[in-house]
Amino acid sequence: MSDHPKTPVVPVVPVEAFEPPYYVAVFTSVRSQEQDGYGETSARMEELVKDVPGYLGMEHAQTPGGLGITVGYFRDADALTRWRTDAEHRVAQRRGRAEWYESYTLHVAKVERSHGFTRAETRRDPRAD
Amino acid sequence: MSDHPKTPVVPVVPVEAFEPPYYVAVFTSVRSQEQDGYGETSARMEELVKDVPGYLGMEHAQTPGGLGITVGYFRDADALTRWRTDAEHRVAQRRGRAEWYESYTLHVAKVERSHGFTRAETRRDPRAD
Repeated sequence: MSDHPKTPVVPVVPVEAFEPPYYVAVFTSVRSQEQDGYGETSARMEELVKDVPGYLGMEHAQTPGGLGITVGYFRDADALTRWRTDAEHRVAQRRGRAEWYESYTLHVAKVERSHGFTRAETRRDPRAD
Repeated sequence: MSDHPKTPVVPVVPVEAFEPPYYVAVFTSVRSQEQDGYGETSARMEELVKDVPGYLGMEHAQTPGGLGITVGYFRDADALTRWRTDAEHRVAQRRGRAEWYESYTLHVAKVERSHGFTRAETRRDPRAD
């Protein structure tokens, strides 16, 4: 395949601790045996979400056992609604339930406090306890 | 090493969608080069947190690039406070900052809505869109 989607660039620094309140969407999933088109759609969604006003960032990791954890960060509930109801995203959601996911859980939550720690420089938030 | 800690058992089903409100603690981290004792402490914390009244569950995954995502689920803010201030956990937190983590971010958030989807049976929550 000459044009298969690039592997998403994995951040080596955690998404920052934004100023609360903001929203996190925690999406945990186990994929099915049917993965045709998943990679392309996933890469497309990763690009598309960046256009959502209020989108702050996203992180994804996966266990060897197949549990995936995706965390999306959004400025407010409206931003999340825009992403949830995006027409192209809705098509992807439907296809996900029909084909790609064995099971998933979505938790939408309002961040009340956050802090970050960086070894080299703790300027981001010195209250790192 | 004859007594190195067992690899934590990885769930093959996502943690369920509990009845809101409940809390999620999203901890994202990049580890340092110093990992002496990390495995033992991590395994111990995974056991210890289960004793916290109001603890609901935990999930962890890691990218090949080294970004770890841990999500803890708690019934209420008090449960999270109990865990955050647990004496043994505090020692682990301090050691984490001194040795094991290059950087991390913690987001503590109150879940406002959640839903689950399971291919074989959607009884958990049929509103899976």
